[in-house]
This record gives sequence, C-alpha cells and structure tokens, in this order.
Amino acid sequence: MAKEITSRKENYSQWYNDIVIKAGLADHSAVRGCMIIKPYGYAIWEKIQAQLDKMFKETGHQNAYFPLFIPKSFFSKEASHVEGFAKECAIVTHYRLKNDPNGKGLIVDEEAKLEEELIVRPTSETIIWNTYHSWIQSYRDLPILINQWANVVRWEMRTRLFLRTAEFLWQEGHTAHATMGEAIAETKQMVNVYAKFAQEWMSMPVIIGTKSEAERFAGAVDTYCIEALMQDGKALQAGTSHFLGQNFAKAFDVKFTSKEGVLDYVWATSWGVSTRLMGALVMAHSDDNGLVLPPKLAPTQVVFIPIYKTEEELARISEKVHQIKRILDSKGISTLYDDRDNLKPGFKFAEYELKGFPVRIAIGPKDLEKGTVEIARRDTLQKQFIAQENVPEFVEQLLVDIQENLFNKATIFRAENTTMVESYEEFKKVLDEKGGFILAHWDGTRETEEIIKDDTKATIRCIPLDGVKEDGKCILTGKPSGQRVVFARAY
Amino acid sequence: MAKEITSRKENYSQWYNDIVIKAGLADHSAVRGCMIIKPYGYAIWEKIQAQLDKMFKETGHQNAYFPLFIPKSFFSKEASHVEGFAKECAIVTHYRLKNDPNGKGLIVDEEAKLEEELIVRPTSETIIWNTYHSWIQSYRDLPILINQWANVVRWEMRTRLFLRTAEFLWQEGHTAHATMGEAIAETKQMVNVYAKFAQEWMSMPVIIGTKSEAERFAGAVDTYCIEALMQDGKALQAGTSHFLGQNFAKAFDVKFTSKEGVLDYVWATSWGVSTRLMGALVMAHSDDNGLVLPPKLAPTQVVFIPIYKTEEELARISEKVHQIKRILDSKGISTLYDDRDNLKPGFKFAEYELKGFPVRIAIGPKDLEKGTVEIARRDTLQKQFIAQENVPEFVEQLLVDIQENLFNKATIFRAENTTMVESYEEFKKVLDEKGGFILAHWDGTRETEEIIKDDTKATIRCIPLDGVKEDGKCILTGKPSGQRVVFARAY
Repeated sequence: MAKEITSRKENYSQWYNDIVIKAGLADHSAVRGCMIIKPYGYAIWEKIQAQLDKMFKETGHQNAYFPLFIPKSFFSKEASHVEGFAKECAIVTHYRLKNDPNGKGLIVDEEAKLEEELIVRPTSETIIWNTYHSWIQSYRDLPILINQWANVVRWEMRTRLFLRTAEFLWQEGHTAHATMGEAIAETKQMVNVYAKFAQEWMSMPVIIGTKSEAERFAGAVDTYCIEALMQDGKALQAGTSHFLGQNFAKAFDVKFTSKEGVLDYVWATSWGVSTRLMGALVMAHSDDNGLVLPPKLAPTQVVFIPIYKTEEELARISEKVHQIKRILDSKGISTLYDDRDNLKPGFKFAEYELKGFPVRIAIGPKDLEKGTVEIARRDTLQKQFIAQENVPEFVEQLLVDIQENLFNKATIFRAENTTMVESYEEFKKVLDEKGGFILAHWDGTRETEEIIKDDTKATIRCIPLDGVKEDGKCILTGKPSGQRVVFARAY
Repeated sequence: MAKEITSRKENYSQWYNDIVIKAGLADHSAVRGCMIIKPYGYAIWEKIQAQLDKMFKETGHQNAYFPLFIPKSFFSKEASHVEGFAKECAIVTHYRLKNDPNGKGLIVDEEAKLEEELIVRPTSETIIWNTYHSWIQSYRDLPILINQWANVVRWEMRTRLFLRTAEFLWQEGHTAHATMGEAIAETKQMVNVYAKFAQEWMSMPVIIGTKSEAERFAGAVDTYCIEALMQDGKALQAGTSHFLGQNFAKAFDVKFTSKEGVLDYVWATSWGVSTRLMGALVMAHSDDNGLVLPPKLAPTQVVFIPIYKTEEELARISEKVHQIKRILDSKGISTLYDDRDNLKPGFKFAEYELKGFPVRIAIGPKDLEKGTVEIARRDTLQKQFIAQENVPEFVEQLLVDIQENLFNKATIFRAENTTMVESYEEFKKVLDEKGGFILAHWDGTRETEEIIKDDTKATIRCIPLDGVKEDGKCILTGKPSGQRVVFARAY
C-alpha cells in the first residue's frame, strides 16, 4: 500500500493528497468543495476537539449553539466585516421543492421564495452579537464566555482537503467584556491556549504574533495568530484570536450599564481553529511512507501484529498479546490487536505505517522462545527487541519520547528554514531557493506589504510577540523599522 | 423567579415555554424557526451526547462527517423518500453576494447561480449512500457502522423550542450490511440502545414498537421507535431506528460481491435521536417550580448555598463547604458553591429550583453549631438535616434515589394514563377526557388508521414489541386484530 504514495520530492502537493486519501482521513464528495471526513480522520478530530474543549472549559468558557443561517442584512451592519466576508457564500433563497409538472423530478417552488435571503454562516459574529443585544444590560451580565462547535461555509473556488474546503468544522469563541483590558487579556489568553495545544498535543512549534492591518480579520481591531511551518517551506496559519474592540457592539447596539452607572458599548473577542488543523497535522510530521501522528492525537497508539504459521502458534501468541495488551489498556494506552487471518504481516506493517500508528509490536514464534517482542516506532522507523515483561514500561516511555521527538524534529526543521535577510534581493533569493520563514525589517505600511506580496506572493505571516526589538531598515523602502516581521508564502 | 412560571394547569404549553426560556435552556433567534441553545441547555445536550456516543462506540460504531449540502437530484432517486421528505427544505441557489449598485447594502449576484440547487440536509441517507457506492465492493468492506453528529434543517411552519425547530442537532447512524438478518439485528439493537438511554439516563419510561405503514420513515421497510408519554397526556416519539432494506442501495447502485462470489445489493439501516430529547426531558419530570433533571444528565448535581449575616460566619461556612465539596468532587459528583454576595438565599433557592439542580445543600450558623447541613431534593422538594460527616455518603445515595424516583414516578404516571378500550365510542371519550396512551385493537389497514386520525387527531404511536398477542376486533371496523396497538395524540 505504502508504495502508492507519491514522494514529497516528486510532488509535495500530490504526496499530501495521497496521505489524506489513502490513510483514510477524508474523501472528496459529490458536492463541489465539500469533503467527507472518514472515520479515521474524524477520530483524530475528536481527539483534537476533546482536548481543546477541556482547555476552553478550564479557562471558564461554556458551549452554546447559534443558528446555521444568518439574515443577509446582518452582514451589512459592520462595515469592514462585510467587505472582508460574506461575498462568496451559500445563499438560501427558497424553502420548498415541488414535483416538476413535466415529470422531470423536483424543481424549486418559486412561490416559496424567502422575503430576505439567508446566508449559511461563514462565521457567527453577526448572529451572536445580534443575540447579545438582548442578553446584556448590566455589568452583572458580563463577561459572557461562549464557545460554539459548528460547521461553517465559505464558497472557496480552489479547494484542498482539510486545508481549504467550502464547508469545514471549527470552533468559534465569542466573548463579551466590560472593559477593553479584559477583552485584550482574553484575546491573548486564547492565542496562548492555541499555541500550547499546537506544541504539546500536535508536536508542532508555532510562532505567536499579531497580524498586519492587511491580514487582519474583517472587523477586528487586532488579530493574534499562531503560524506553523510546513515541510515544503510554506507557512500555515493554524489559529487566530481577535480583539474586536467595540465594533460589533456598535453595529448591533449592545450596551451595558457599568458598576458606576455609566452606559457604554461592550468589548468583544472572537477566536477559532478548524479542521484545517488536520491538514497542518498531516504536513507537519508525515513522511514518504505515510502519516506520522503524535501519540497524544493518535486514535490508536499501539498495534500488535502476530507472525505465525500454525494455528497453535497463533493461539500462543494471542495469549501473550492479550496479557500485555491488558496492562497497556489499564495504563490508558489505546491498543489494537490485528489478528486478521487473510492478510500477511508485511501488508499490515505497511498499512499501519501508512496510517501513522505510533508504535507497532510484532510477536513471532522466535519471540515466544526468547520471551521478547519486536517494537517499531513510526517516527524514526527504528526497531528493537524488548523483553516481554518490560513492554508496558517501555511503551509508556516510548510514547512520551515520540511526542517529544516529533516536536524537536519539527523545531529543528523550522530553525533550519528560518532565515534573516537584510535586503530585498536576498529576500527574493531565499524565498525562491529555500522558502521557509524569512525574518526581515518592514516599514509598517500597507503599501510596502502589498508591493512585496504582488511581487513575490509572500505575505507577512505575523509580527512575532517575542521578536527582538532592534532598529533596522525596511528591506523594500529603507525606512526605519523597530522589529523584524515573519514573511513567508503561505497556505 | 419561580413565580413567573405559568402553571401546567393554567396553560401547559406556556408552562413548557416558560421553563425552556427561564431556566436558560434555549432562546428564540432572529431566524424564523431556528433556536439558540443556551449554555445551560447545551451542557445538558453535551451530557446526552457523551453517553449516547459511548453507547454507539460500545456497539462498534465510528463517527464520520458528510456534507451539509445535498444535490437536489439525489432526492429524486429513492421514490418514497422524495415523497416523504425534501419538499419543505432550505434551498441554496446562489453562491455570491454583491454590493447593491444603488447603495442599498448587499444583493444576490444573479451571475453566481448554481447549475444544480443544493438542499441543506434534512437527513443524510442520500448523500451517504451515494458515497457508499464507492466505498463498498466486497463483503470484506462490510459491515460499515457509521454515525454522524450534525445539524439538519426541515422547513417547519409551526415551530416550538426543541420539539420542532427548522434547524436542530442530532445524530444519524447509517449502516451497511451483507445480509438482511444482520441489518434487522442492527435496527433492533439501536432502538434498544435508545430505550436503555431513555430509561436509565433520562429516567423516562418508553414503549418500544414498530410504526404502522403510514407513520414509517420515508424510504424504510420497517421503522422501530421509542414512544414516551408527556405530562399533558400527549405522546412524544423520542427516537427511531429504520430497517431500510435494499431501497437506498438500489437507488444509489451499491452492490457487493459476497463470500460466495454472488453480486447483491447491500442492506441498510439508519437511526437517530435529536435535540427533541431535550423537550422530552423537560416535559417528563418538571413541575410548576421549574425544571426537574435526572442526576445523570444534570450539568451540576449539587449546589451549596451559604446562609450568613457576617463575613466571619461566611468564612466559617465556606471552609466547611469546601471540605465537603472536595469529597463530593472526588467521588465524581459535580458541585457548585454559590457564594455570590449580592443575592439573598431565598432568591438562590428559587433559581436552582427553576434550573432543576437535583440537590441543594444549605449551611447556616446554626448548622455550624450543630454540625449539620440542610439537604433539599429537587424531585420531591423534601428537606432534611444531615450530619456533616455523613453528607458525602448521603448525597451519593440520594442522587441514585432521585434518578430512580423520577423513573418510578413517570412509570406510575404512564400506567395511570394508559387505558385499554374496546369500542370507538370509548376510544373517543378517553381521548378527550383523559388523553394518554390508548391500547386498542386495529384491523391493520392504512384506511382505518387514516379515518381515526382525521376524526380524532390521534395516531398509532406504535405496535408494541412486547404487546400481548390476543384476538380482538378493530375498534372502528370490527375486523379481526391479533394485537392491541398504542394510540395517542402526539407532539
């Protein structure tokens, strides 16, 4: 099976698609731009959801659910929001089908036309702030700390499984606060939650920063983001957290009376990550043999494969496997015993490599004699023999090691593919020959950013929060700059 | 607060709405027929989801996700499905908005018209079986045991929070099997899972049965259901499980090669429950003081309320509460300490009664002296003093008792409101004067059922699986019948 995967060198984009489809993560559907998330892919998404949901709740948030549809007029209420959004979207205009009088199946019943069209939500700020209008009167109603797990639709013309699809799954936090300071603190808290999740669960190092004005969310005062580097040297925005100021409160007239009796507009944030993380996860670690998963997000962490000729051998192996498996299960390690009798061990090895199971344990007759098993780790493909009685402890530590190794490997890769440049010539050369993150000085203007983007397709991924403050000159205009920003070509 | 709830006697329908809105379960939205599920309501739904999801996985199912949109032509493929469905639905016809040249906000861009309209899924059989066409070739690909958690839309004209909304949340299982027997076994297994969930988690007794032909799911060969009785004597269908035969496999040409090398169509089931269960939960147990929740589904099971005059008293009470709370938390009991200083105890008591917290523990200065607490149970509103050291054990048992008591109470109510009738006169009299479930003989024909329905608004809720086989005569036609069926007016 693994042979069928295109190598990264040959065609990176095809390699990505091969893994997503052949590892059983997702599939194209009959509806343009909409994907099917297959059970194995969905099981990973469930792990992502469970952990993020836990972190949201630990930071005081509650889940709720708002309507799928948004009245068209809502989008016009926040001026910059409507410019950045809502143009390419799914529009519901009718609510009834009828039988074609000519007998050709179903047709739209023109009599069932909506007075006002409904938009399938591309994001929910408008419908939620319209609701907050009736929920918020006093400072006692604040803060509101709500998150929603939902599907959203943006009518993308060029789609790629997980990375860019017309419909995708995500979570969107929408919080309301009495003060600017509190809202900004919330915005920062959530981008830090995302960074922690990316690094500790996905083993994916990220840069935390703010967006330039041009890359900011439509309607935000400030957008914080986490940016990761993929193996082809392109950047991927993995999560965003927006400080919305009082923009949406003003658009939907959401005011509150403060402790001091003063009437003011409410302060807002919103923040989200989506099934796009699945694409990032695939590209962060996988190799030419298939998917590589960090143990904390692998639906199954350990697979046992018996190697046998006779039924009697299988019985003895199975007994031993069940013994070890029970101990692993009791430690909270997820395991699978694949004793399907119609497939050869070599085929199974390739299949679990393709699917990115972190640890594979093979047991054959010789192992029974010697009291050993053969343990292979997916990240390095290294194998070693381990005494059966040591397996539980060994595997427990191995899962920790793999989780760390993936993070370290990705961090080293990122360091090797991050370049400081001092001139625009150097910038273009590095971009074309090496790619990756480029740290360069920028004069802070929208015009400069646009010229560079039009010229090179590179954008400012973020102004890193922990960037060194240093005097420098913009690579394009030579004007003064106080900090390098991160440029890259991006997904 | 509690005073604001309309009593059941005064206006049952208003009572239901009052509880849903005032306990903070859900709210109306700006979009006709679509509801907002508020944090407290969503927290209950999360508990429902978590338990059902566990039961689905224990019975071998995996989750996946299919597109929100279904091409219009798919609905025409299964003849009876299209008749029963897809007429009242949300239809996406365009994919772009543009600025009105006259400056009046946004208008639909007529150039961005879809070639084929897309329907927002009212249920996913068609898109899923269209997908299974490419997933299934051989018996080795079977069974497929997939569940989806999703939102669906049915353009209902008269909506009620949770009970009937244009958009609702649900799960839909869609399984594919090599044999008819296996598919029927799956259908029955899942209706039993639903019954177990309703009885053991919701404390709601249900009748398991099959639907008459007229009430069957559009496209099903046989529909199993669970039917519950609400406090106003009306029935509520709480879950359905459909044996679809080979209907969808034929409509979407899904064939497989059997072990014996024979090509045949695949056998199908589908099954689902929705946020409608929330409505059932509210109506099954609540009273004129507000919501009553079974402990297993209550987001918070125990609330502590301090009763004090001085800060010093509060400090001593708080210390004691934290002591007890820690022990309860460690037992997996969810607790809340409400020490808000701006609200009186009486106000808090009413609030938690309204919200249906199963157990309330009050501690005042006298309790500190005597080493006691006052424990009130929400189901019976009974209060008693308990020695502080006995609280953890007492509460643990009390939660079990409340769960059981609610089930028993509902079971007795149902028994008292289930009537056997022998004639159509008696049938109509019971229906109008008493309501409830009516067990009556029926001749098995669609015509008879329709006459009774048109005449009385009562429908056959189900043909109970455990019904006694007895000879009788149809109440309307006098024709022979082998078993009583369950009639009722229904939600």
